[in-house]
Amino acid sequence: MEVLAALNLGEISHTFSKMGMFPVFDLAYYIVSILYLKYEPGSVEVSRRSPVASWLCAMLYCFGSYILADVMLGHSPVDYFQHNSHILLASLVWYLIFYCPLNLFYKCVAFLPVKLVLVALKEVVRTRKIAAGVHHAHHAYHHGFFIMVIVGYVKGSGVALMSNFEQLLRGVWRPETNEILNMSFPTKASLYGAILFTLQEAHLLPVAKSTLILGFTLFMATSKVVMTARHSHGSPFALIESWVCHLLFGSPLGGAEEDHHAPAPASPLKTKEELSEGARKRKTKKAE
Amino acid sequence: MEVLAALNLGEISHTFSKMGMFPVFDLAYYIVSILYLKYEPGSVEVSRRSPVASWLCAMLYCFGSYILADVMLGHSPVDYFQHNSHILLASLVWYLIFYCPLNLFYKCVAFLPVKLVLVALKEVVRTRKIAAGVHHAHHAYHHGFFIMVIVGYVKGSGVALMSNFEQLLRGVWRPETNEILNMSFPTKASLYGAILFTLQEAHLLPVAKSTLILGFTLFMATSKVVMTARHSHGSPFALIESWVCHLLFGSPLGGAEEDHHAPAPASPLKTKEELSEGARKRKTKKAE
Amino acid sequence: MEVLAALNLGEISHTFSKMGMFPVFDLAYYIVSILYLKYEPGSVEVSRRSPVASWLCAMLYCFGSYILADVMLGHSPVDYFQHNSHILLASLVWYLIFYCPLNLFYKCVAFLPVKLVLVALKEVVRTRKIAAGVHHAHHAYHHGFFIMVIVGYVKGSGVALMSNFEQLLRGVWRPETNEILNMSFPTKASLYGAILFTLQEAHLLPVAKSTLILGFTLFMATSKVVMTARHSHGSPFALIESWVCHLLFGSPLGGAEEDHHAPAPASPLKTKEELSEGARKRKTKKAE
Repeated sequence: MEVLAALNLGEISHTFSKMGMFPVFDLAYYIVSILYLKYEPGSVEVSRRSPVASWLCAMLYCFGSYILADVMLGHSPVDYFQHNSHILLASLVWYLIFYCPLNLFYKCVAFLPVKLVLVALKEVVRTRKIAAGVHHAHHAYHHGFFIMVIVGYVKGSGVALMSNFEQLLRGVWRPETNEILNMSFPTKASLYGAILFTLQEAHLLPVAKSTLILGFTLFMATSKVVMTARHSHGSPFALIESWVCHLLFGSPLGGAEEDHHAPAPASPLKTKEELSEGARKRKTKKAE
Repeated sequence: MEVLAALNLGEISHTFSKMGMFPVFDLAYYIVSILYLKYEPGSVEVSRRSPVASWLCAMLYCFGSYILADVMLGHSPVDYFQHNSHILLASLVWYLIFYCPLNLFYKCVAFLPVKLVLVALKEVVRTRKIAAGVHHAHHAYHHGFFIMVIVGYVKGSGVALMSNFEQLLRGVWRPETNEILNMSFPTKASLYGAILFTLQEAHLLPVAKSTLILGFTLFMATSKVVMTARHSHGSPFALIESWVCHLLFGSPLGGAEEDHHAPAPASPLKTKEELSEGARKRKTKKAE
Repeated sequence: MEVLAALNLGEISHTFSKMGMFPVFDLAYYIVSILYLKYEPGSVEVSRRSPVASWLCAMLYCFGSYILADVMLGHSPVDYFQHNSHILLASLVWYLIFYCPLNLFYKCVAFLPVKLVLVALKEVVRTRKIAAGVHHAHHAYHHGFFIMVIVGYVKGSGVALMSNFEQLLRGVWRPETNEILNMSFPTKASLYGAILFTLQEAHLLPVAKSTLILGFTLFMATSKVVMTARHSHGSPFALIESWVCHLLFGSPLGGAEEDHHAPAPASPLKTKEELSEGARKRKTKKAE
């Protein structure tokens, strides 16, 4: 009975890890990403004044992870733009979210039940990207474990890691913070995921890659869906991190969590994915 | 009779599109580019305090388009610096414009009739760069139409697209604007040119490349000469753009033009190539 | 007798130029580099709040020269991170300097006699990097003399040339200055060294490379040890530079030196390696 279960799990995870991402999952990824762009203060105004800048930002939100990973591996940063269908699909999503009459498309995809499904689908793509990034780096540098972690990390975090420069494109400059100084949950999870996939690639983690993909996807999707549904931005890692940082780096206990909350009043729009839904909608509406 | 005319036009455009750019046209390009650098407020002071920074800025003004295109295609950003004669010629122009006794060289090339000729020659180089950029990208990515447009665009716009970072090199930081948010006429024309040349490369535009080069060069040279002579910065695209943006992106009618003018008082030195000649000269003189 | 001396010198310099840098010299390089990172105001606070950002900055301090040189030559910027033992050693040094109980490691290596030895060893590595950078660029571009100088220069200067962006990672933004506008002694010396090694590679300097390496190392080590011991930041080039800049670029006589000092009161923490030891220690202590 248990063997059967294991066999099934193995088969399921294998099938799951071979599933194509285009177009359904990628579409969800583009929608959620450009939704977060529209939540950014000032982005609607930019879309009116300079459609080119707005389109470019949307492309960074959708393909930032590919751009960064290509840069890290010394390839052309626009390499991914050869996939015309992906770019066209993302451009269509950008157009619908920013310019659809009556804001209809935006209202549909920002409707919570729809959004929860899209968020879950986005995390499927994120996990696959991390795994592919680590694998790609492993192919180029067989023993470059640090490179594998770095490439997997940038593949998972995407535009967040270059948010300072993405904001600069929209005429916004907030040098006092960045995604490395104040990591949001998806960025942290991408780092931990990249480490796990690197350990797996180095045969230090006795688990099949497809199983790891399935497990990590389930963890990410559940976490993000729960966080989105509860408008929360607490991290499931907070407690462990707080203790590990205290022991290793002498950070004050509970500091990680406090640090996360403390700077909020001063610049309340810092992290991209962590604003409460209500505040976001009010801001977006006002901007229109 | 008409066949003869067509034959002649074909021959003329073919000869024109094969004409070498070095040294005459390139020289004009370097002179006009470094002239615009000298118009930038503070650049004369930088040339006194730190010749290395000033030289580097001058190189970015002259070779920014090559640097950006090489970065976009994943090549070495300093690849073009292997052409020692080009670098030496540009360095000579930089030296003469910034350090010539009695400011003699500057006075000669900034003399309006001379400058108009140089500006026209510069546009010849710009068009050729766009065509070469699109062709180069087409060679690397046969169906990468977006990549062709991007590479042609950066080849035509050059330093303008990285003006924030070029200014940073001189200790100036203006994050509230950039060339994508507020496109100047040459940047816009480069974008439209890159799209045209991409369509031609994709066989969607039923016209020979040499004819397109000739036509686009004539348009660019005429526009820029008229704009320079009249100290104007109105764009010939303004009316069409205004309507297209209104229909497609819901921008307020006439907004494109107003947006262009409105921010001027607050930061009057924003766009590199759009200051009135008089104001420029006064500023440059004061700075010396 | 003289022939013998020449032979010995040749042998010594040959042996010296073939000497391995790892681990002793590299260790000294990492220690001194991360020491300078700890002197930076706010870096200790960052190490408590965000160990990842602090580690990344430390890596930039240790491997910035490799990253920049790889970028310049179109390679992967993280190429050097395949050397796991180097990264682990540098990470260990980072951990000991920032988190060692009682600050013991920091106190040992910042103790002046120890530090003077480490500083001398660091200059050995710097010279070797410049020579290797020029050689590497010569291999890729046989007649690209400008590229050789640029690559040698970035190999010698390392993180200093990207200090604006390294500071941004720690949430600090000082756009009004950068290492090109206000070159510190090591950056200037790296430029001159890169020019010398390029001339040697182009057979315009009638001296063996090993002799040049030995001579330049001795000059750099002596200069830096004396400057560190005397807490001085005067440059041995000041007098010559002042005259050359006056003649070539019309800079006011003695201006180079004054320029260097003048902006100090306004932003007293501008250059990384030029603070007086006392001020640094006070600041570092306060920050802890």
